[in-house]
Amino acid sequence: MAWDTERTKQLLLDAATAEFSEHGLAGARVDRIAAAAGVNKERIYQYFGKKHELFAVVLAEALQAALQAVNAEGTGPDAVGDYAARLFDHHMAHPEIPRLVYWEGLERGIAAADSPTRAAFHAEKVDRMQRMLPGIDRVAAGELLLTLVSLVNAWPVLPQLDALIIPDAGDRAERIATRRAAIVQTVTAAAAAAWVVAAD
Amino acid sequence: MAWDTERTKQLLLDAATAEFSEHGLAGARVDRIAAAAGVNKERIYQYFGKKHELFAVVLAEALQAALQAVNAEGTGPDAVGDYAARLFDHHMAHPEIPRLVYWEGLERGIAAADSPTRAAFHAEKVDRMQRMLPGIDRVAAGELLLTLVSLVNAWPVLPQLDALIIPDAGDRAERIATRRAAIVQTVTAAAAAAWVVAAD
Repeated sequence: MAWDTERTKQLLLDAATAEFSEHGLAGARVDRIAAAAGVNKERIYQYFGKKHELFAVVLAEALQAALQAVNAEGTGPDAVGDYAARLFDHHMAHPEIPRLVYWEGLERGIAAADSPTRAAFHAEKVDRMQRMLPGIDRVAAGELLLTLVSLVNAWPVLPQLDALIIPDAGDRAERIATRRAAIVQTVTAAAAAAWVVAAD
Repeated sequence: MAWDTERTKQLLLDAATAEFSEHGLAGARVDRIAAAAGVNKERIYQYFGKKHELFAVVLAEALQAALQAVNAEGTGPDAVGDYAARLFDHHMAHPEIPRLVYWEGLERGIAAADSPTRAAFHAEKVDRMQRMLPGIDRVAAGELLLTLVSLVNAWPVLPQLDALIIPDAGDRAERIATRRAAIVQTVTAAAAAAWVVAAD
């Protein structure tokens, strides 16, 4: 019975991830999530509450999985660049994450910050920046993290700008590698600039 | 009569800008745009075609106005950083631009790149990067532009990440100034890194 509940919840979360990633919060339909999961709609409200609460659980779980999958290793600007590279790879394999992050910003805005779970998650990510760049203060570490996550999350959700700005990009794998290298170069340079300021 | 047509179109574009910025493409209601403009709904289809075509006109006009308002001056990495600073200021004064750019990416994706108007607009922006960093090739200029516009547009639409990552930010004007400085530092460092590579 407990196993069935967990399985039902997971089916609903998987269906909700696909629905929210495609349509956002307002555009998502609880009916479609229930149908895709093969579960009665009432279960969604029973297990997760309102639609925006289900959205919050979906995104928090996806972010937590990313935190586990992509660890921070080493110190110095190159370590931060390498972290950006591995986060980029994870997000390319899980394109729902960048989409959910931007839907959340556009549709829920600052209200989405009112979450102890998410606060703990992001505090841990700032800790990582401080461990990779010893001596950097918390605000500078936060700015660098914002820059890193903005760049890694923006590119997959702005395919129109990529096509307009780099119109003759060649094949897809090559384009991904080139953009990845540009992000690593930028994040490494930003980390070096922030670290120099911290050392002054 | 011609004056009335232009005035009606402008009323519709202003109402559409507010509606699309708030609700995105799928969430926007043509009825609400018509009501807010005080114009018959049929005029929208007559002047602009389908809803997504109206969206495209709204964003193209906002971007064109930004291009006129924020010019590129000088050469070298500091000139690129200064350009980023002034584009950031323009977008803070016109928050509909970052929102429309991300809605477009999430909702229309690559289909939005199929526009000669937009292609010419973005080509002109890449030209600017090449004029500010003489010798840089077109792909490197495009990567730097993508980085710059990603950073400048991301921050206003991700207020939840800002609140979670920089939780004790103090007052709003101070926070804007600090984030602006971090973006300028990053873009300047990225421009310097790209320019060094170009000079090799």
